[in-house]
Amino acid sequence: MSKPTPLSGFPEFLPSQRIVEQEVIDRLRTVFELHGFAGIETRAAEPMAELLRKGEIDKEVYVVRRLHAEPGSAADDVSGDSGSRDTLGLHYDLTVPFARYVLENSGKLDFPFRRYQIQKAWRGERPQEGRFREFTQADIDIVGAGELAFHYDVEVATVMVTALSRLTELQIPPMRLQVNNRKLLEGFYLGLGANDPHAVMRVVDKLDKVPADVIARMLQTDAGLDADQAATCLALAAISSPDAGFVARVRALGVEHDLLETGLAELTAVMTALAELDAPNVTVTADLRIARGLDYYTGTVFETQMSGFEHLGSICSGGRYDALADDGRNVYPGVGISLGVSRILVPLLTRGRLEASRSVPSAVLVAVVSDETRDVSEAVARALRTRGIATEVAPAASRYGKQIRFAQRRGIPFVWFPPAATDSSDDAAAPGEHQVRDIRSGDQVAADVGSWAPPDADLRPTVTAHP
Amino acid sequence: MSKPTPLSGFPEFLPSQRIVEQEVIDRLRTVFELHGFAGIETRAAEPMAELLRKGEIDKEVYVVRRLHAEPGSAADDVSGDSGSRDTLGLHYDLTVPFARYVLENSGKLDFPFRRYQIQKAWRGERPQEGRFREFTQADIDIVGAGELAFHYDVEVATVMVTALSRLTELQIPPMRLQVNNRKLLEGFYLGLGANDPHAVMRVVDKLDKVPADVIARMLQTDAGLDADQAATCLALAAISSPDAGFVARVRALGVEHDLLETGLAELTAVMTALAELDAPNVTVTADLRIARGLDYYTGTVFETQMSGFEHLGSICSGGRYDALADDGRNVYPGVGISLGVSRILVPLLTRGRLEASRSVPSAVLVAVVSDETRDVSEAVARALRTRGIATEVAPAASRYGKQIRFAQRRGIPFVWFPPAATDSSDDAAAPGEHQVRDIRSGDQVAADVGSWAPPDADLRPTVTAHP
Repeated sequence: MSKPTPLSGFPEFLPSQRIVEQEVIDRLRTVFELHGFAGIETRAAEPMAELLRKGEIDKEVYVVRRLHAEPGSAADDVSGDSGSRDTLGLHYDLTVPFARYVLENSGKLDFPFRRYQIQKAWRGERPQEGRFREFTQADIDIVGAGELAFHYDVEVATVMVTALSRLTELQIPPMRLQVNNRKLLEGFYLGLGANDPHAVMRVVDKLDKVPADVIARMLQTDAGLDADQAATCLALAAISSPDAGFVARVRALGVEHDLLETGLAELTAVMTALAELDAPNVTVTADLRIARGLDYYTGTVFETQMSGFEHLGSICSGGRYDALADDGRNVYPGVGISLGVSRILVPLLTRGRLEASRSVPSAVLVAVVSDETRDVSEAVARALRTRGIATEVAPAASRYGKQIRFAQRRGIPFVWFPPAATDSSDDAAAPGEHQVRDIRSGDQVAADVGSWAPPDADLRPTVTAHP
Repeated sequence: MSKPTPLSGFPEFLPSQRIVEQEVIDRLRTVFELHGFAGIETRAAEPMAELLRKGEIDKEVYVVRRLHAEPGSAADDVSGDSGSRDTLGLHYDLTVPFARYVLENSGKLDFPFRRYQIQKAWRGERPQEGRFREFTQADIDIVGAGELAFHYDVEVATVMVTALSRLTELQIPPMRLQVNNRKLLEGFYLGLGANDPHAVMRVVDKLDKVPADVIARMLQTDAGLDADQAATCLALAAISSPDAGFVARVRALGVEHDLLETGLAELTAVMTALAELDAPNVTVTADLRIARGLDYYTGTVFETQMSGFEHLGSICSGGRYDALADDGRNVYPGVGISLGVSRILVPLLTRGRLEASRSVPSAVLVAVVSDETRDVSEAVARALRTRGIATEVAPAASRYGKQIRFAQRRGIPFVWFPPAATDSSDDAAAPGEHQVRDIRSGDQVAADVGSWAPPDADLRPTVTAHP
């Protein structure tokens, strides 16, 4: 067969790149679990009716169909016939399947239910940097049955900022989390006299792509404001502060509304809590321009930019929604944030900005003295593994120079030499004793199988950055 | 929306069940990495031409198609149109994508390349116990470029037996690994005078489902043997031994062939190495009946039964193949084993045979004394988390009895009481000091936020069995 070529939009990693991704996922998992979030996975496929329910048809859903299914057969409940009520599609995010999971298992879950979910999702959109057809997301959400206290907004933000901070320790670029509150916006627009605050929000949300003077005109033509009201909305959107300083600047605009007060108090609470966190390399700002396009957000909203990679768009977004799901008996409000693992890592890894110190887990390669004494080398490896030291044995009793190069190519830092059974022309090992060589420095010392260990920094592959 | 119902063949776990699955996957990963296997993931979708290349059309491949793709459009390279050369399907195992990955990246991988891969796969087959439409597999393979020494057969078997043994420590039922060697079988049949040893193998492979006397007749009608030869083949298939004892029993059948000798030596080497392993609860037998249906195996072959669940079929299978892939310049021989994580876990978890000690990672719930002092409880939680103790804070300052029940429902073993700010009618906490209660025993002691830790056994959820 001819050499296969990569599939556009379906990024894959080499082993050393996967080590970086695995380390990122491990760190996220550790932070989420330390905060009591339960990990779940949901199936990759959902009924198409569910996937399209929220009018998200522009998400370019992938339909799945059994190769041997009778087209349109009603007998096959997962036939993949896109005309059928029971057709399946691959999930395009982790929120829709989570909402379905909560409803399906509502009697078996304890609320408030906090879960994390790190899984792939699929979208048939045109591939471009930071946008893929297959990608990994890491979501956290806290969901209540009937009600969910506001302090969970603060908690979800705190957990994700902590997680982002742990990622920047890996030399992932600094992050800027932007926070806003939809109640603040809606209350402000209502206090200003807007008849349709959501129309105002939809226009202001375009500030990223459309010049301010055009927005000002659109606020008049599309959202029914007069010129003064439009200017005041733009003044609100221009407010950005690293702390609770935004409150005074909002009040200076002279608009009053109960919902605005609630929004100001909520955003202040989030900003105050985040300021207390020890999270270097993660900047938090209250940005009154942030609205999030999606209609289901009802309070706190988040977006995140990665420094130097702002063109990727937000790499971590979410917010408060009053109704994640509704089963007729209960409404399930929630708050959550979704981190784009692939959106962060694919650009960094393909540019060589991040690299693992080796392509294998092994800290030690045990050399083979002669093919007849391979079992001696295997016994050394077994002994090291019982003490948690990842170890492999050289493929064959070739010249030590060749065995050392085997380790070098993979970045394995240590080569272990069992005692030479007989005199050898190689002088790497003294007969009669085990020796271990740090092949980076060339230092070689006698070592005991039962007690030697590599320095902690060499036990597992590490991640290094190349700015 | 109405309550959703599960999708047949797409098993999902509740949070406490997922804890068991995650523990299984963590243990597998630990063993694989200790042996130097690099973890990779491949994309979920492969070109249909690749998936169907080996005539595996009976695997019921799921075709994926963009909802908005023009049917048959050649312009869309991943249109999902099943008539197109570039149509995609979901992978039905991890071997086909791995072979493609090796070819695609052959210039960037170091051979012999050892990898593990723990991922989902999809097959549109009829769901039944142990067979699913979406399932998780854990594969290990070692692949060479051009050649691969036999000792890797021994190594792959050793690693998987070690991994299985670590699973049985979780009270997963005992396992029986059955080993055979295709060279032994082929050499034996050739030495016996069979013209078509593969035809003999295919008939003998049916011994699971077809009575021996019928097999004896089929060997004559379908594989061209005479009655004596057929009887000798059945005598070979009846040989099973827990050690190298099979060699003498094979020799007693009086058949000679060079390939038989090679097979006997290889199987002896595998059996001898596995006998030396400290792997309680994993029995290893040389079973000369095992052939594995797939034609691509060329040497060592493995199957595994789980005690009490033999009706599931083999839960862990694999073997040696001389050509995993071939790019015209190199042939890539390999040896690998695939473990059915879902096949093992779904039956055990749905029957309640295995259970996690709690449904959340949290070891501690910090009670909230009053809604105004929630920050005191949050500070306790932060301090515990910095020392690796998974902690959550109670939802509200309700009565302590209610807060304790919140922990009980989730199986959280400890409740932490911050000092009561004022006199309280609840007597759980003495004013002025932090206390922590083991809610299983009711024991409550004063505790210091900076030094208290739960017993190691309570730090993380544990897995218990209910036979």
